[in-house]
Amino acid sequence: MTRFIENDQFARYLGVEILDHSPGAARARMPIRAHHLNSAGTVHGGAIFSLADAAFAVASNSHGPLSMAINVSISFFLAVTEGVLYAEAEEASLAPKLATYVIRVTDDRGRRIALFQGTVYRKSERA
Amino acid sequence: MTRFIENDQFARYLGVEILDHSPGAARARMPIRAHHLNSAGTVHGGAIFSLADAAFAVASNSHGPLSMAINVSISFFLAVTEGVLYAEAEEASLAPKLATYVIRVTDDRGRRIALFQGTVYRKSERA
Amino acid sequence: MTRFIENDQFARYLGVEILDHSPGAARARMPIRAHHLNSAGTVHGGAIFSLADAAFAVASNSHGPLSMAINVSISFFLAVTEGVLYAEAEEASLAPKLATYVIRVTDDRGRRIALFQGTVYRKSERA
Amino acid sequence: MTRFIENDQFARYLGVEILDHSPGAARARMPIRAHHLNSAGTVHGGAIFSLADAAFAVASNSHGPLSMAINVSISFFLAVTEGVLYAEAEEASLAPKLATYVIRVTDDRGRRIALFQGTVYRKSERA
Repeated sequence: MTRFIENDQFARYLGVEILDHSPGAARARMPIRAHHLNSAGTVHGGAIFSLADAAFAVASNSHGPLSMAINVSISFFLAVTEGVLYAEAEEASLAPKLATYVIRVTDDRGRRIALFQGTVYRKSERA
Repeated sequence: MTRFIENDQFARYLGVEILDHSPGAARARMPIRAHHLNSAGTVHGGAIFSLADAAFAVASNSHGPLSMAINVSISFFLAVTEGVLYAEAEEASLAPKLATYVIRVTDDRGRRIALFQGTVYRKSERA
Repeated sequence: MTRFIENDQFARYLGVEILDHSPGAARARMPIRAHHLNSAGTVHGGAIFSLADAAFAVASNSHGPLSMAINVSISFFLAVTEGVLYAEAEEASLAPKLATYVIRVTDDRGRRIALFQGTVYRKSERA
Repeated sequence: MTRFIENDQFARYLGVEILDHSPGAARARMPIRAHHLNSAGTVHGGAIFSLADAAFAVASNSHGPLSMAINVSISFFLAVTEGVLYAEAEEASLAPKLATYVIRVTDDRGRRIALFQGTVYRKSERA
């Protein structure tokens, strides 16, 4: 899993850090930088999605089989401009070929920023 | 609109470029770089989402009122590793406070990569 | 709220019953009947959605303002053919004009059947 | 396919009728009845979802392999109270194990009522 996490160049480029993980779960953080901001001066939906997606990838690949995201739905609750964002992934369902995760994104004041629900297709190869 | 596009620091950081736009529509492109790749060596879901999200932001803010994304659902069809990705946003519905857009992501061989459906809340302020 | 619940003709037609509710929350049940089945002989996705949607409507209208669903994403985990289905709605976010709910659908053996994430637009009128 | 359509007891219970279908596509209609209405006196989100879901099921099962819905996202645009609703399904992506469809729901005045994006898992058995 350590190599899997280190190989995520996009997460590293955005400043996403995996805090911890266990089978079916993962936590990540991303300190907000100027390059995360959109035209309205708040953190871009794509940056929030990417933070949650990094936790989703670690949680869904934690069992061994390579898991590819097939669908995600994300709801955005609050615009943020500074501080640190956190994402926490938990497993909602695990079947041989499919699994679904819920990722909650919060800020460093504990406020709810976004809710991400994602489904993966689990391949025969290993992550 | 030009200033709105130039102010998107996150899009610029990822190498997303707005190709053109008209009321309710927009097209964007993103040449794939090493920093877009995930642990499996393919373009990260977060990078694909962010490309589509940039077209979504321009299309939804094109009418004047500031539009904030409240929900997005994205389906991923095909893993890609190189070339250029394109996103094309079209308006599915426009009401005074809410609007919905469909963004199709393709690669430079015309293959369908992802489908993004997003809804915005339209504020009274201007974009 | 009692009249609001009694006025839901569609829920009654499907055999959905609201078990209880409190501000931002609601629970519903639906005993499976032959008319809920699809071509594969399992409960139709539309019937599962409708059960969850009934709990979503009660939870989101529980604060007073009339709430209209604007977006829902649902993931289906397991096909079921008999017994009773339950839906439990909890509030994920509440803002003046928008609110989001998570509804978990389980069967009478406690198995996870579906996960529903829905957002409402809150009007000025009362439910 | 005719038997597949006739076996959908839930669609029949709701008054959904399949108008036509071809590989990857289908059209359905549902005349609005009192039993489709919610507490606000408009057509229930679950009824609109179910109409779209019926077209989705026929389109996704049209190629032969049994297709099970794994995820759907639906956006609701306009509340309706009477007339006839139509759903038109088109294929957005087809891969060996997964396929995605877009279903547009309109009313008999041609207005856009809802947009449904659904993904199926394709089994080895036949529909």
